[in-house]
Amino acid sequence: MKKSFVITIGREFGSGGRETGEKLAEKLGIKCYGKELLKEISEASGLQEKYIESMDERSPGVFPMSSIVTASTAQVDFNSPSMKAYIAQFSTIQNIAERENCIIIGRCADYILSERENVLNIFIYADMDKRIERVMRVYGLNEKEAKKRILKEDKQRAQYYEYYTDKKWGARNSYDICINTGKLGIDNTVDIVASIINGTF
Amino acid sequence: MKKSFVITIGREFGSGGRETGEKLAEKLGIKCYGKELLKEISEASGLQEKYIESMDERSPGVFPMSSIVTASTAQVDFNSPSMKAYIAQFSTIQNIAERENCIIIGRCADYILSERENVLNIFIYADMDKRIERVMRVYGLNEKEAKKRILKEDKQRAQYYEYYTDKKWGARNSYDICINTGKLGIDNTVDIVASIINGTF
Repeated sequence: MKKSFVITIGREFGSGGRETGEKLAEKLGIKCYGKELLKEISEASGLQEKYIESMDERSPGVFPMSSIVTASTAQVDFNSPSMKAYIAQFSTIQNIAERENCIIIGRCADYILSERENVLNIFIYADMDKRIERVMRVYGLNEKEAKKRILKEDKQRAQYYEYYTDKKWGARNSYDICINTGKLGIDNTVDIVASIINGTF
Repeated sequence: MKKSFVITIGREFGSGGRETGEKLAEKLGIKCYGKELLKEISEASGLQEKYIESMDERSPGVFPMSSIVTASTAQVDFNSPSMKAYIAQFSTIQNIAERENCIIIGRCADYILSERENVLNIFIYADMDKRIERVMRVYGLNEKEAKKRILKEDKQRAQYYEYYTDKKWGARNSYDICINTGKLGIDNTVDIVASIINGTF
């Protein structure tokens, strides 16, 4: 771990991606950014933090932005609040990556940082039954509610990711390593990623 | 590494899955089975090794076997050479897993061993440019030939996998961990998997 590095974590809802990021951050002595980004994005964009939060990881449209931009750049309203927020998020993530070794959860960070060196892009997933179990426990939902929530959140994350990037959410080739926390466990996952960072970078 | 275990390796053509398996086997002091299975399958089925080899990891049909079996078991000819070979492969892989800690490359081993405990299913992949580079070097092909060969082999592997299993070839949730050797390198990949085995099992 001599050079600078950033770890980005894509994750299925309920797979423990957030917990993985936090434990990994603690182990590596760096910060983990998820919701923590919102304040900086708010400051950079001038938009209220509450508004930024309301559209955090939510896609403003169904078609990928790249297809709209290709068709006609004029169709993208760069002054719309959602675009202003995304641009602020884009530069906030780039600034953070520039200033410190860190972990960034979701928010297309892998794509935003795709031109940087020493970025490790990981994706965390788990079998549906394991995720239902976790979501029931963490959010106090029953089984049906938990499954519904998982499907909804995953759909939103995929739409968001595929709106702003040219990659497929959760597909192996969008990432450097994909780990099933339901099978390997969160602590093992943390150890694996930490050992990659300590060995490779 | 106290309990018995098996590692199965699914892999994109040209990603170094075979080399990963061999180096991992050496590191763990166990055997790696790929083409080495053919002799045992031949003995178990009574079919000639040459014939077994000619259909190794080749699908006899387009529709998944499970869909045919569901429609009507009579439509599957269990006496056909391809089915005899698959059944022999099925029991050969189960026998090997029963008798020794080992690595098995491809051949639906993850699915065949899905009811066993302590099986780690990994998938090895790499970006197309890295795979082309490797295939050019290993097989002495030019760039165009290498790409054609990669696409053909991957298609055959996917068809084969999806014919005999109910899972999608290369999709993250068919495996416990998916590793991009183009990004992480084969030696790192070997270390990661060895450390999982030494820690988890």
